[in-house]
Amino acid sequence: MELTALAIAEYLGGTVEGDPKATVSEFAKIEEATPGSLSFLSNPKYEHYLYTTKATVVLVNRDLKLEKPVEPTLVRVDDSYGALAKLLQLANAQQPRKQGIHPLACVEKSATLGQGVYIGPYVYVGEEAVVEDNAQIYPHSFIGDRARVGEGTTIYAGVKIYQDCEVGRNCIVHAGVVIGADGFGFAPQPDGSYNKIPQMGNVIVADNVEIGANTTIDRAAMGATRIAEGVKLDNLIQVAHNVEIGEHTVIAAQCGIAGSTKVGKHCMFGGQVGLVGHIEITDGVQIGAQTGVSNSIRKADEPIMGYPAMPLRLFYRTSAIVRRLPEMAAELERLKKLVEGESKDR
Amino acid sequence: MELTALAIAEYLGGTVEGDPKATVSEFAKIEEATPGSLSFLSNPKYEHYLYTTKATVVLVNRDLKLEKPVEPTLVRVDDSYGALAKLLQLANAQQPRKQGIHPLACVEKSATLGQGVYIGPYVYVGEEAVVEDNAQIYPHSFIGDRARVGEGTTIYAGVKIYQDCEVGRNCIVHAGVVIGADGFGFAPQPDGSYNKIPQMGNVIVADNVEIGANTTIDRAAMGATRIAEGVKLDNLIQVAHNVEIGEHTVIAAQCGIAGSTKVGKHCMFGGQVGLVGHIEITDGVQIGAQTGVSNSIRKADEPIMGYPAMPLRLFYRTSAIVRRLPEMAAELERLKKLVEGESKDR
Amino acid sequence: MELTALAIAEYLGGTVEGDPKATVSEFAKIEEATPGSLSFLSNPKYEHYLYTTKATVVLVNRDLKLEKPVEPTLVRVDDSYGALAKLLQLANAQQPRKQGIHPLACVEKSATLGQGVYIGPYVYVGEEAVVEDNAQIYPHSFIGDRARVGEGTTIYAGVKIYQDCEVGRNCIVHAGVVIGADGFGFAPQPDGSYNKIPQMGNVIVADNVEIGANTTIDRAAMGATRIAEGVKLDNLIQVAHNVEIGEHTVIAAQCGIAGSTKVGKHCMFGGQVGLVGHIEITDGVQIGAQTGVSNSIRKADEPIMGYPAMPLRLFYRTSAIVRRLPEMAAELERLKKLVEGESKDR
Repeated sequence: MELTALAIAEYLGGTVEGDPKATVSEFAKIEEATPGSLSFLSNPKYEHYLYTTKATVVLVNRDLKLEKPVEPTLVRVDDSYGALAKLLQLANAQQPRKQGIHPLACVEKSATLGQGVYIGPYVYVGEEAVVEDNAQIYPHSFIGDRARVGEGTTIYAGVKIYQDCEVGRNCIVHAGVVIGADGFGFAPQPDGSYNKIPQMGNVIVADNVEIGANTTIDRAAMGATRIAEGVKLDNLIQVAHNVEIGEHTVIAAQCGIAGSTKVGKHCMFGGQVGLVGHIEITDGVQIGAQTGVSNSIRKADEPIMGYPAMPLRLFYRTSAIVRRLPEMAAELERLKKLVEGESKDR
Repeated sequence: MELTALAIAEYLGGTVEGDPKATVSEFAKIEEATPGSLSFLSNPKYEHYLYTTKATVVLVNRDLKLEKPVEPTLVRVDDSYGALAKLLQLANAQQPRKQGIHPLACVEKSATLGQGVYIGPYVYVGEEAVVEDNAQIYPHSFIGDRARVGEGTTIYAGVKIYQDCEVGRNCIVHAGVVIGADGFGFAPQPDGSYNKIPQMGNVIVADNVEIGANTTIDRAAMGATRIAEGVKLDNLIQVAHNVEIGEHTVIAAQCGIAGSTKVGKHCMFGGQVGLVGHIEITDGVQIGAQTGVSNSIRKADEPIMGYPAMPLRLFYRTSAIVRRLPEMAAELERLKKLVEGESKDR
Repeated sequence: MELTALAIAEYLGGTVEGDPKATVSEFAKIEEATPGSLSFLSNPKYEHYLYTTKATVVLVNRDLKLEKPVEPTLVRVDDSYGALAKLLQLANAQQPRKQGIHPLACVEKSATLGQGVYIGPYVYVGEEAVVEDNAQIYPHSFIGDRARVGEGTTIYAGVKIYQDCEVGRNCIVHAGVVIGADGFGFAPQPDGSYNKIPQMGNVIVADNVEIGANTTIDRAAMGATRIAEGVKLDNLIQVAHNVEIGEHTVIAAQCGIAGSTKVGKHCMFGGQVGLVGHIEITDGVQIGAQTGVSNSIRKADEPIMGYPAMPLRLFYRTSAIVRRLPEMAAELERLKKLVEGESKDR
């Protein structure tokens, strides 16, 4: 795909600063770009690269102030990161799309396949399972009995969807994801062993959800584990049985959410966060990386961080003091001697 | 499966409070139940739902005291959660069972398959591997050369069992589990590179073990990595080479146990716990979520929590004080001035 | 493979202490060894087993001082662990090697397969993909379009390598690894939803890299996520888009590295470490288990540990004081009363 700076500006509603005929044919990071490539600047941390980049065209924010002249042609837009996303989507949409039912796939007779689907080699589609129109199922994926894959959804290689689970429309499920394995439920017995609680519920993933590689979402004991519209889950996340995650919540890699916990809408979690079971996180809560949350969070007025969790500013302040604890302890000891010495003196 | 409250009470050794003919045909969580469904109350946190639930029958503990009249028929039992488990197992046992060797499976001639096994499409069973009677192997699973799957064990889709590893009887291994990948062992070289230590041992999983989705259990360098009878491992857990986990120990999601560590019997670990290598955890130890354990634990008298690990009550007390550190630091500063001012005064 | 103590000593450049004709045919841990087996002693923690072991031959360090006579024949070498590695490699090299292209594999016509490769049953090799000489691809692995697997590399069962990604020579990639899933990039929209940023880059894994089971390495947004020569990654690790990991860095299980972070050469990370995105870790940095790193580390003079990260010795000191915080708080309170009482007295 070849594009001129002018065409780009027109597509994005931006303005050209430099040569409107400058032409690009690939995308590159600003610090790695070569001539003929389009780059972008969004994070100010990378601004110094603007003056050394070899990119031919750079997308920048409209309000960026240049400190000195730049080589590349600039295209100024309201939001350079969002604009980049649009361009990448345009380029991505032009890539060829897998289609057809591969002869090495195994689709049970009672299953239903929609129009325009891709069913790759070694895909298994179980009894009464449904794959809706234009869904794509890559090799080695397993769609269990009565499971459902929504319209336009992409299931990458080696995804395992257990029986009766549902994935909505326009979702992207990355390789190795497991949806619907049994929740972790056992009744302790008098002899110290455990009796399995059969997990009779399912998992329901709504539309426009993306799920990262090797993430696991367990089926409910009863009812459903629910991932709402627009949720984005990164890689290697654990979502336990009967968890509910609200619309457009974004969760970074390796987080774990224990059973029956409800997470609100528009939350953002950093990586490796852990939430205990049976709590509620209200809408819009932001939680920093590695935080351990053991109680419900009912207000979203401040980000949360720490182990145990506390308001972010408090975490910063206590962390700074923790580093000084050796001095504090020495100081306390010194004062003690001083005071007790004085007391003794008199 | 339709059941009356009376039949349920008789099966469970409980007593009916309300209409003994009340009939249910499905299970539901107390807060989501609809008429015709059976629910249960175990966690007191959910007790208030008892007065609003639409469930037709609810299992409750024998000693539960009602605060006001309730709509559903109650079945009182000694342990409502255990009773629920029994009922669910009854329902579960009536579900149809997969059987037969699928023509798209690949079983090496030297492998041995028992009676009544299920070998799904795209399953690979290696040279001299053994799958015992009534074991079920779901699609895309890999049973390596000389590996063994015990009687009545279920291996869900896409499980990878490396050569020479053993899984006992009546185990459940969920999708994406990897058993027997190489332990992480390397000898540092003078030039700063590493020489691989070939991992010549295996993994031995005993009977009645359940292993959650995408969990990994590495083969031993020499000897065996051992998971004892009745152990329950949740999803995304890392068990390193030569680890041993004792009978009926229960480990929540995303825990990691480093090499050669020995965990006792009847332990319980919360999620995301980490244990360093070469330590021993005695029987019955309980460890809270996200705890970092860097030393052996020889007594099980108190739960452990924190990073670094400490007794739970101490963790609670120190955590409360950590939150007050900014005030403490200020107070210390104030006292210091006061004391030194006094000293100077004289 | 049968070996005498003398043959072992000659192969390793060591010296025999005991019977040079003592013969061994298998490897065993020192505490589990039976007659006829070879063991080793490297970690001093296990030294007491030397006096009770049933091993016939034990590799020990040249400078080991015996406290009393020992039963087994000793072979003294400069580095017993490294020597063990050499012997294990010798034994390992004699194990039979999988070869040939299985009739149940699916290799696209435009793909290229080198000499001596193993392509197992149910392997998929995509359009224009390349599998170089002597590479081994185990069952259920997926090699995406235009992906490349280098000479002599082993890809274990169920690995998923997305389109355009590259794995170098003599690498080992364990079961369930996902290379090249989309990085986690989304542009927030005014309505609170997110627009996917298509991830147009790839993953480039250099030579002699080992990657543990179920680890995930995301493809770059643009450019490449890079794993350099000799890197060793354990199981269940998350490597986000555009991360770079330098030569011979070793990372333990369940670590997570967020987007665009650069890790230097010869670093060592313990398990469950988390690094935020867009930071740099210089060469040779050692990071303790569960550490949370939120800033670049520019000096490798001291190991790092803690949440938040701090120098290891400071972590030890502060951790010890944290345990004493309840006493410190009480002491502070007592002093306060003493001082204020005194002040009041006057």
